[in-house]
Amino acid sequence: MISRKILLKDEDIPRQWYNLAADLPTPMDPPLGPDGKPIGPEMLAPVFPMNLIEQEVSQQRWIDIPEEILDILYRWRPAPLRRAVYLERFLKTPAKIYYKDESTSPPGSHKPNTAVAQAWYNKQFGIKRLTTETGAGQWGSALSFACKLIGLECKVFMVRISFDQKPFRKIMMQVWGGKCIASPSNETNAGREILQKMPDTPGSLGIAISEAIEAAVTDSSGKTRYSLGSVLNHVLLHQTIIGLEAKKQLQMIGEKLPDIIIGCAGGGSNFAGISFPFVYDKINGKKIEIYPVEPAACPSLTKGPFVYDHGDTAKMTPLLPMHSLGHDFVPQPIHAGGLRYHGMAPLVSRAVHEGLLTPKAYPQLQCYEAAMTWVGTEGTICAPETSHAIACVIEEAVKAREEGKEKVILFNYSGHGLMDLSGYDSYLSGKLTNLELPQDEIDRMTAIFASMPKPNQGKTGKW
Amino acid sequence: MISRKILLKDEDIPRQWYNLAADLPTPMDPPLGPDGKPIGPEMLAPVFPMNLIEQEVSQQRWIDIPEEILDILYRWRPAPLRRAVYLERFLKTPAKIYYKDESTSPPGSHKPNTAVAQAWYNKQFGIKRLTTETGAGQWGSALSFACKLIGLECKVFMVRISFDQKPFRKIMMQVWGGKCIASPSNETNAGREILQKMPDTPGSLGIAISEAIEAAVTDSSGKTRYSLGSVLNHVLLHQTIIGLEAKKQLQMIGEKLPDIIIGCAGGGSNFAGISFPFVYDKINGKKIEIYPVEPAACPSLTKGPFVYDHGDTAKMTPLLPMHSLGHDFVPQPIHAGGLRYHGMAPLVSRAVHEGLLTPKAYPQLQCYEAAMTWVGTEGTICAPETSHAIACVIEEAVKAREEGKEKVILFNYSGHGLMDLSGYDSYLSGKLTNLELPQDEIDRMTAIFASMPKPNQGKTGKW
Repeated sequence: MISRKILLKDEDIPRQWYNLAADLPTPMDPPLGPDGKPIGPEMLAPVFPMNLIEQEVSQQRWIDIPEEILDILYRWRPAPLRRAVYLERFLKTPAKIYYKDESTSPPGSHKPNTAVAQAWYNKQFGIKRLTTETGAGQWGSALSFACKLIGLECKVFMVRISFDQKPFRKIMMQVWGGKCIASPSNETNAGREILQKMPDTPGSLGIAISEAIEAAVTDSSGKTRYSLGSVLNHVLLHQTIIGLEAKKQLQMIGEKLPDIIIGCAGGGSNFAGISFPFVYDKINGKKIEIYPVEPAACPSLTKGPFVYDHGDTAKMTPLLPMHSLGHDFVPQPIHAGGLRYHGMAPLVSRAVHEGLLTPKAYPQLQCYEAAMTWVGTEGTICAPETSHAIACVIEEAVKAREEGKEKVILFNYSGHGLMDLSGYDSYLSGKLTNLELPQDEIDRMTAIFASMPKPNQGKTGKW
Repeated sequence: MISRKILLKDEDIPRQWYNLAADLPTPMDPPLGPDGKPIGPEMLAPVFPMNLIEQEVSQQRWIDIPEEILDILYRWRPAPLRRAVYLERFLKTPAKIYYKDESTSPPGSHKPNTAVAQAWYNKQFGIKRLTTETGAGQWGSALSFACKLIGLECKVFMVRISFDQKPFRKIMMQVWGGKCIASPSNETNAGREILQKMPDTPGSLGIAISEAIEAAVTDSSGKTRYSLGSVLNHVLLHQTIIGLEAKKQLQMIGEKLPDIIIGCAGGGSNFAGISFPFVYDKINGKKIEIYPVEPAACPSLTKGPFVYDHGDTAKMTPLLPMHSLGHDFVPQPIHAGGLRYHGMAPLVSRAVHEGLLTPKAYPQLQCYEAAMTWVGTEGTICAPETSHAIACVIEEAVKAREEGKEKVILFNYSGHGLMDLSGYDSYLSGKLTNLELPQDEIDRMTAIFASMPKPNQGKTGKW
């Protein structure tokens, strides 16, 4: 009988995270300060607790997962590896399609893998309260959930337009004890300034990040820190449990290493989670095609240059070495809110630069078509972000059929779409368009970046 | 290491449903026609396909599950049996609390277990289209899902107030290809008549049932049938896969038979699913306490008499032998929409009458408190219906602590609450009240029933 679900026991959960930084052919470039010089880890101390900063700069290959974190993850981990037999049949492909089901976490996505770890390390460091921003709401929900279980307060600045359009996401955070505030708000200088100038602004992720960081660093008790849901090294580290589990699960059924690995990529965390443990194998000589998939409307990897850029619109973060469309780039309103980020995780950017990953970009309509094919075969409703991975999976499975090759495809089913049904509604009623990025916008960005520092030019040092 | 998740492999899925009717100490009473005489199975033929009517009247203990149905159920079944270790710790109880997680189906509840079976049998019978009604939307979603995978059209009459208040449920049905119409509608005589008298009516489940049955029986092609999501014998039969899996899973870890089994009960289907395979053991001498849990606002088992009553407000169904609050009873607007049904499945009603089950009723606020305890320990957001089971679980676990007994408690986690967040919002903002049923209303019902036929008085024959 075909194994449709490959399930690990609790005792088989991975006990260490994998740190790709230890194995990259060239070392990571450090972040730069406003003066263009590398910053030291201590510069981040007002924003993050020291134990997470240590992980951020670590070069150690394996980092132990504390038992207390595992005890929380056991609520839904190890997560199932499933085989998409119904999609395989429909496509008449000889390819075997496996997917890691990250939709089984209580908030419904991969985000809690790092939310739980970050909340736990903050708690260990004596922190009482976390602040963060959220766009569509996945990350805000995940951090609220983690803080509830660990015993921290959580304040989420949610982009006003999403706050108004997605009242259920806000309630979800409140159920887990999170305080969810529309951004811009009157709680920060950054928010007040913008409200004064533009009282009717719909807000933006850039503004929300500025407010969340300000709320953390200005708390005079010193017991508040900021938490980020993607992009940074320690966030990606925590997500590698996804790929490590998948590797064990494939071994369990005697399956070979995947020929193709696919994940959608916004800030890069779910993609890194599924792929980095296999990038290790690729570095060590195995032949694996690895595809980060981004929206054509926000193509940082496929169209953006590899530069130093800020992580937020208001330039509160250091300059990070990454593929970017520019910190003031405002992506068009595609429904995959989690993929509407101007930059890309430095580790993912670096791995692309080294030729280890081959980024792809798909337009919105093709992704919803793929999601509907999934609905009609596997039966579940995926997140709009996840549909980007599925679009690529379908393309590769069809190619395998044409080539007559029994390839093994692994992808990350990063989350369900039960809180994102309005996007499906727009698609079904024919209102959606592709919203691709115009070439002149890309040219404008490229010109701006020409004068900025470039990673890996011998000018930058080490952390 | 404690087994937090007890997982069956696909090949261990039960291959037969269990039919409690074969083992009840006294046989089931037949439904009665408008003349008060037992109706024959053929009377149901315009409404249901003959293969399902055969299951409805079957006295056979075990009924084979067709391989083609299993092939669809494998998408999420066997479902996990989980142990609520975090709740146990919080309650400091020596009880072991196991729960069957039915929230893992694509529509998020136990409903697809019978939706898939019903759609498949209809398809086998040559039917092209199913009609049904839905209140909160769980059942309409499940039937749309099943029809999508099996290749039937599906038309859902959704109570207008829910249609307007829960736009996401409607979209969910549409994603699975279901056609969702606000009821009362202009598509049926029943709907048109009501709209003419009351153009602004919020609708009711009774009206929606009338419309769905009319739409099925008046289709001149003869290729349309009606589908019901609870109450009837064949619906409960299909749900027994829940308890049969749970029994295997408990055996797998060497656990004894449960001391206590709990499920929420609206029409009775999820409760029957978890409990009936164990009612078999109770009939055969094992000591098990089995609690169907209903809302205090709609207490058909604890306050309603065991009588013959119609399944719908418009009296389109035969008289069914059941506990009922009266077919014209309109329950108060508690958030557990799936428990707002005036009657109770005849099989459950009969088992209560035989002393095999001990019904309990809980007020709304206690149920939301229980749900919030669950959120803070196990971490997931349960459906408002499921919270009724959890309220009873917590009470029993605390009792076990007080008695110092290591009891085994099993309950059915019938669904998640991600589409029901507005109820949590009302609770958290202090707007909820208990909405218990006033005694004078019960007295009024009891008086009406005094003149109606009673089950089990020797006047009724056999099917």
